[in-house]
Amino acid sequence: RNAPGHVAIVGGGFLGLELATLLKNRGQRVTVLAPGGPLGGHLEASMVDRLDEILARFGISVRRERAVSVKRPGLGPRIMVKTDRLELVGAHMVIFAAGIDPVAGLGGTSIRRTAAGTYAVDASMRTSARNVFACGDCVSVPSLPDGRSRWLPLSPVAFRGARIAGYNAARRGRAPTRSLPPPAGSYTARVADVEVACVGLTVDAARQAGFAADHAEIRSVTASSLHEHSRPVFVDLVFDRPAGRLLGAQIIGAQGAALRIDVVAAVMAQGGTVTDLYEVDFAYAPPVAPSFDPLMVAAREAQKQLGRR
Amino acid sequence: RNAPGHVAIVGGGFLGLELATLLKNRGQRVTVLAPGGPLGGHLEASMVDRLDEILARFGISVRRERAVSVKRPGLGPRIMVKTDRLELVGAHMVIFAAGIDPVAGLGGTSIRRTAAGTYAVDASMRTSARNVFACGDCVSVPSLPDGRSRWLPLSPVAFRGARIAGYNAARRGRAPTRSLPPPAGSYTARVADVEVACVGLTVDAARQAGFAADHAEIRSVTASSLHEHSRPVFVDLVFDRPAGRLLGAQIIGAQGAALRIDVVAAVMAQGGTVTDLYEVDFAYAPPVAPSFDPLMVAAREAQKQLGRR
Repeated sequence: RNAPGHVAIVGGGFLGLELATLLKNRGQRVTVLAPGGPLGGHLEASMVDRLDEILARFGISVRRERAVSVKRPGLGPRIMVKTDRLELVGAHMVIFAAGIDPVAGLGGTSIRRTAAGTYAVDASMRTSARNVFACGDCVSVPSLPDGRSRWLPLSPVAFRGARIAGYNAARRGRAPTRSLPPPAGSYTARVADVEVACVGLTVDAARQAGFAADHAEIRSVTASSLHEHSRPVFVDLVFDRPAGRLLGAQIIGAQGAALRIDVVAAVMAQGGTVTDLYEVDFAYAPPVAPSFDPLMVAAREAQKQLGRR
Repeated sequence: RNAPGHVAIVGGGFLGLELATLLKNRGQRVTVLAPGGPLGGHLEASMVDRLDEILARFGISVRRERAVSVKRPGLGPRIMVKTDRLELVGAHMVIFAAGIDPVAGLGGTSIRRTAAGTYAVDASMRTSARNVFACGDCVSVPSLPDGRSRWLPLSPVAFRGARIAGYNAARRGRAPTRSLPPPAGSYTARVADVEVACVGLTVDAARQAGFAADHAEIRSVTASSLHEHSRPVFVDLVFDRPAGRLLGAQIIGAQGAALRIDVVAAVMAQGGTVTDLYEVDFAYAPPVAPSFDPLMVAAREAQKQLGRR
């Protein structure tokens, strides 16, 4: 069971890449089948390419192909995965990490559901049925940056939603309902030897939502470049024109890099711009952060793209 | 020169403790003389005690005594430091890291100076002399949370102030002046085997500034408690009553803990409350952060102290 073998992972999302990292660290050969590349849909194409390079250096191969069938051709342990390019990938184990589906079957068809299959709830976590509140991975909630209903199956969103749903369902008389603060949708994971994090919308998702969106990508360092712990970090900020309102962000970098996404989430929660992010009084000490924090460098690059001097 | 010796460091501020850590890591015995304890004045008394314990475990002794004289009694390398408790501390090297003084002598006495000895500038970085702008460690600037002028000799404040001073000094005609966004005063350092960070005011400083200030302190973890990288982290939030407006924060914890101070700075920049901090959509993944981020736990504790259910 611990002998080196070849594992094929179907799905290049956060879970698939976390599994790939754990298996690689245990000495397995790992191939990930992900038609959109690693974290495609969560990251801009250029950030997907950077992550692909990092995974390749770490020894995890990502093939941009979709698995279409899985067969065990003989009596042995060997499994063959066929892809949409008609390639065959042989493996000793195949793991499906191709995503999750919401289960929202309660109440038959009487409660309104979204195209994603989730219950549509308002900010009070109320469904289309007046006395039914819902929370967890089976709901879509009004979210940042525009209040649109989105499916964000994330533990912190489920926890907050549950508190609001429970309070509102149990309240008495004329007590006002409480509202879920619209979540930004913060994702993070440790993948290969880096941390990855994202929040809000990609440029494509933002344009589909009607924003005049653009993005700025920079390479910086996690600590002062003179310090032994300094490692590269990549930041991509998504913003609208002409105001420069923050719509999303993506970060790839060494340990400690991912937490910076919480700063972007805090600025987004206030409807802030790239200038608000630039003006945050970032802490500086050579072993902890460079004197120009990567988020400040990215915000300045976005300002330049917006024509701000 | 690399032989183990005993180094006495006069001063328990960020620089003194960073030096103590570096020397200890090189095999020196180190004693720090700091009458207020390690980072006294920057941290609440209970956080000073926690840091003291961490330093002691790391092998750095902090004596809460003031150095009053330094003598070399014989011909040998031995130096004796006398303290205000009339104790004698013998050392082979004494390092003074007891603080810095602003040098603001330009213009004789004609430019107004603060009690700290700095130039008082407004948000445009203009001194009391209409055509003289100033920036760097020699100025006090209007700062968070109340716009009062404070001396914050920090690199990011100096950098931002210089951009504003330069722009305003060089602008022509009726072009409007630019203003420095009031800094929160974010400090951080790696000390012993932890990171320390603080921003804004301590309870004492906040009360002196007229706030009905209180604080909430919690112990949490840097990552999911089931994860091998999980380490303790202490957070102290300072807020006013009854609104719960954030006035400051302090963090002590393992690598990655300090950057969380930037999230507090971002919320403070918007005049936000402990509830605004609680509602930030913190990213969660077991190796990166616990499902309830330490800042969220601290904000919830503050809400409880404020009587919020």
